[in-house]
Amino acid sequence: MEDSIINLLEQLRVEKPLVHNITNLVVMNNTANALLALGASPVMVHSPLEVREVVDIAQALVINIGTLSEDTAEAMLVATEHANTIGRPWVLDPVGAGISAFRNDLLSNLLDLKPTVIRGNASEIMTLYNFNQPNTKGVDSTTASKDALRFGQLLQEQTGSIICISGEVDYILSQQYRVEVFNGNPLMTQVTGLGCSATALIGAFLGVTDHYFEAAVAGVSILSLAGELAAQTAAGPGTLQLNLYDELYQLNAERLKSKLKIKRYAH
Amino acid sequence: MEDSIINLLEQLRVEKPLVHNITNLVVMNNTANALLALGASPVMVHSPLEVREVVDIAQALVINIGTLSEDTAEAMLVATEHANTIGRPWVLDPVGAGISAFRNDLLSNLLDLKPTVIRGNASEIMTLYNFNQPNTKGVDSTTASKDALRFGQLLQEQTGSIICISGEVDYILSQQYRVEVFNGNPLMTQVTGLGCSATALIGAFLGVTDHYFEAAVAGVSILSLAGELAAQTAAGPGTLQLNLYDELYQLNAERLKSKLKIKRYAH
Amino acid sequence: MEDSIINLLEQLRVEKPLVHNITNLVVMNNTANALLALGASPVMVHSPLEVREVVDIAQALVINIGTLSEDTAEAMLVATEHANTIGRPWVLDPVGAGISAFRNDLLSNLLDLKPTVIRGNASEIMTLYNFNQPNTKGVDSTTASKDALRFGQLLQEQTGSIICISGEVDYILSQQYRVEVFNGNPLMTQVTGLGCSATALIGAFLGVTDHYFEAAVAGVSILSLAGELAAQTAAGPGTLQLNLYDELYQLNAERLKSKLKIKRYAH
Repeated sequence: MEDSIINLLEQLRVEKPLVHNITNLVVMNNTANALLALGASPVMVHSPLEVREVVDIAQALVINIGTLSEDTAEAMLVATEHANTIGRPWVLDPVGAGISAFRNDLLSNLLDLKPTVIRGNASEIMTLYNFNQPNTKGVDSTTASKDALRFGQLLQEQTGSIICISGEVDYILSQQYRVEVFNGNPLMTQVTGLGCSATALIGAFLGVTDHYFEAAVAGVSILSLAGELAAQTAAGPGTLQLNLYDELYQLNAERLKSKLKIKRYAH
Repeated sequence: MEDSIINLLEQLRVEKPLVHNITNLVVMNNTANALLALGASPVMVHSPLEVREVVDIAQALVINIGTLSEDTAEAMLVATEHANTIGRPWVLDPVGAGISAFRNDLLSNLLDLKPTVIRGNASEIMTLYNFNQPNTKGVDSTTASKDALRFGQLLQEQTGSIICISGEVDYILSQQYRVEVFNGNPLMTQVTGLGCSATALIGAFLGVTDHYFEAAVAGVSILSLAGELAAQTAAGPGTLQLNLYDELYQLNAERLKSKLKIKRYAH
Repeated sequence: MEDSIINLLEQLRVEKPLVHNITNLVVMNNTANALLALGASPVMVHSPLEVREVVDIAQALVINIGTLSEDTAEAMLVATEHANTIGRPWVLDPVGAGISAFRNDLLSNLLDLKPTVIRGNASEIMTLYNFNQPNTKGVDSTTASKDALRFGQLLQEQTGSIICISGEVDYILSQQYRVEVFNGNPLMTQVTGLGCSATALIGAFLGVTDHYFEAAVAGVSILSLAGELAAQTAAGPGTLQLNLYDELYQLNAERLKSKLKIKRYAH
């Protein structure tokens, strides 16, 4: 797995994929900067009037539903339908799944459109599998990622999507494999939008390979590793966020080889 | 007062209140990070289609009118009416009060809904009391907070809300008391949204106590103290903003006890 | 030229011009902070219902089309028409010119309204001159600024606007002069929105002088110099962004005198 991640990162820095983000307003700046720091090229366009044309020129699409309006919800449906039509991979971040009927309806429609990858925290993944679950606590997870593993696997079977569950251990699930990522740091939960940044990085890797499972593993593990390294010298969440960009920028084969803690299992 | 602030901070870190923010686009990321750094849990949702459901699950509501649209203005009215109905406390940040008829109309409607707390700079508080004042200079205050004290007291009587005025000295006013906070640093005025962050912290404290005046004092004084500490080692406004999150994260009883400079007066 | 820049900066810090930004959601926070760090006073208001009143009280207007909606597009037209009516200078940042018909239509309308200054990267400036060019690659430039020089000059003649082209070398073009700025650092391309920050600074200088060409030169060169200084001690793009605010804050006559690398040519 490590070699595949190293190769994908090299490829990303050469190809500089254009990643189209229809994303939430809280993290727009951060995810743009995470993509740029790693070596990708972000474009954030969310008007229903122009997303189709941007999907055409981008290599991958990121959908993050954190701060919805009717307009952006419509743009997400227009963009993902068009991505499917022209064979563009896309990743869904179901931020706040379960907190409102409007949000759940949109998520139902997006699930029907079969995302290439879905990445969320434990609560969000559990809610996606069963919209009759009790409400989540806003956008922070109330469930350990391990508890969500069973639901993640069921969601994988239901949708055919690759499922990523972020938490103390990160899980990436396909029909055949489960990868566990042990990198990260608890302080990361006190910075907004690091999960969203993982989703954006998955988008960047989807833009450089047809091996979507490897792309998802690369996005999740690189964000968790960069966060872990960023936390080591951080006095708090402010420094962590700052260091994260620098770590993404400095990340190389040697660091990945020596620091990544991931395991792959066949089901 | 210091003991009350210390207790409230401990309580906040245990309870991790969910704070619903309908806030301005400039500071969304910063206020989310300030809330997370202190120990609260932010949720930023602003579609009129879903704010009612989020008010239901949140412990407090923050309304910041910095960057309005018709949609968010409607969401603010829907959310605050619902908050009143179910007894949820809320804080109003009247950013840019006076700069347009649209903004003043919305503020009039929000004042009628009796915010639990209102926090603004001197110009904004003066404008709120009398919408016939000359225009403010954008969103930065043109008046010292001391000059606004009389108007703040009148606004308190008019609305019954707790009134907070930020400035070189911060004032928190109830029917019975006036608290003065002497923490802070002039460099804080060259970072966008630190007043908005104070408002968000007030929201967090409103989520853990029924003593709303103490909550307002805690929010205002903790932000001013964290800014003061952040400025001490800052080379400029960039470092100040970064340090602020780390200071909020590191804040503890000992620091509060030794560094807070606040005084309470009975009227 | 250096003396003019030094004088303009001093003037800006005394007058603290109110700069009205109708700008993109990715960089709102950054451009507000860049303006504050330098000494100007930003106001970000984008509802068509209130932009006219804000243009009235502001000294200059910044239009950045990065993340459009129908609402903000309308606000941009309302605000620029009103700015022309009352003689307020304004600067246009044509982010992502060429990526959609909706965006190109808006840009055509804005060009008809004769911006005081236009600032973009090479691809954007080339696209503005000829909307029949092939699509740009998102928002990052695919063309060196030098190659765009000819198109920039043609665009200058077509519109009468002052044209700024950002890149390894920055160009500022009027009917009579061409200024070349050699400050900057390649790492700046891995931080989102530094071009947008240059545009915002141009807006700030437009607010303190009628010599619009000098204002454009000051905005472009000060941002490039601050970025160059910020990069010198940066471990990556995270630190660069942070340092940039501190550098803008610390910038003074001595630093400008010794570090600026600019040349002026008559056509």
